Amino acid sequence: MSEVKLDFAKEGGLIPAVIQDRGGDVLMVGFMNQEAFEHTLATGFVTFYSRSRRKLWLKGETSGNRLRMLRIRTDCDADALLIEAEMEGMQAVCHEGFRSCFFREWQDGKFADQGERVFDPAQVYGKG
Amino acid sequence: MSEVKLDFAKEGGLIPAVIQDRGGDVLMVGFMNQEAFEHTLATGFVTFYSRSRRKLWLKGETSGNRLRMLRIRTDCDADALLIEAEMEGMQAVCHEGFRSCFFREWQDGKFADQGERVFDPAQVYGKG
Repeated sequence: MSEVKLDFAKEGGLIPAVIQDRGGDVLMVGFMNQEAFEHTLATGFVTFYSRSRRKLWLKGETSGNRLRMLRIRTDCDADALLIEAEMEGMQAVCHEGFRSCFFREWQDGKFADQGERVFDPAQVYGKG
Repeated sequence: MSEVKLDFAKEGGLIPAVIQDRGGDVLMVGFMNQEAFEHTLATGFVTFYSRSRRKLWLKGETSGNRLRMLRIRTDCDADALLIEAEMEGMQAVCHEGFRSCFFREWQDGKFADQGERVFDPAQVYGKG
């Protein structure tokens, strides 16, 4: 088998990275470029590429809710990543204060918020 | 709360859709456009937009390994989907014959194949 190389070409240098905890919950999806992937490997903490800020984004840099990388997998086409990670800090990844960013569920023809907030975003990020 | 609308603008009309089984295993990541999302809702079977073929892609159309949609969630920014699904057919989603597309794990500085094939791709797709 030839060596598997991540394919960053399809979305302009970015591939989706799914973050999952040990229990199987999907916490968030971010995007990585080559540099973000290497930064994740080098530091042991999940680092994305922020599409809005156009720069590397060490997850939890502001909030302290970093993601300690435990296991990295890629798929058949090497164009997506699945990263098992352990949450540090407040046990929440979402900037809106939820444990998982996927707190909205499709019900009766629309997305409705589910679950309880773990923290108050205004307290952590100083907004509002 | 105003109604949450999926944000398809960031990646040229596409958002990543993470497919997870009931047990928590992440099976694959595909991309959806608005039409693929609506097709998934209307049929109850996961439908992606194929970036290589540039058209709707009913997952399992050829292999019979369709994904019956059970639950759909979106994230804080409404730019990713998390879909819980039940596998039909051979209990495998990967065109290379594995149960999950994420059969490659980072070990000792490279990605190595893990796990056993569920089916032989040559038998199913007539290749090789």
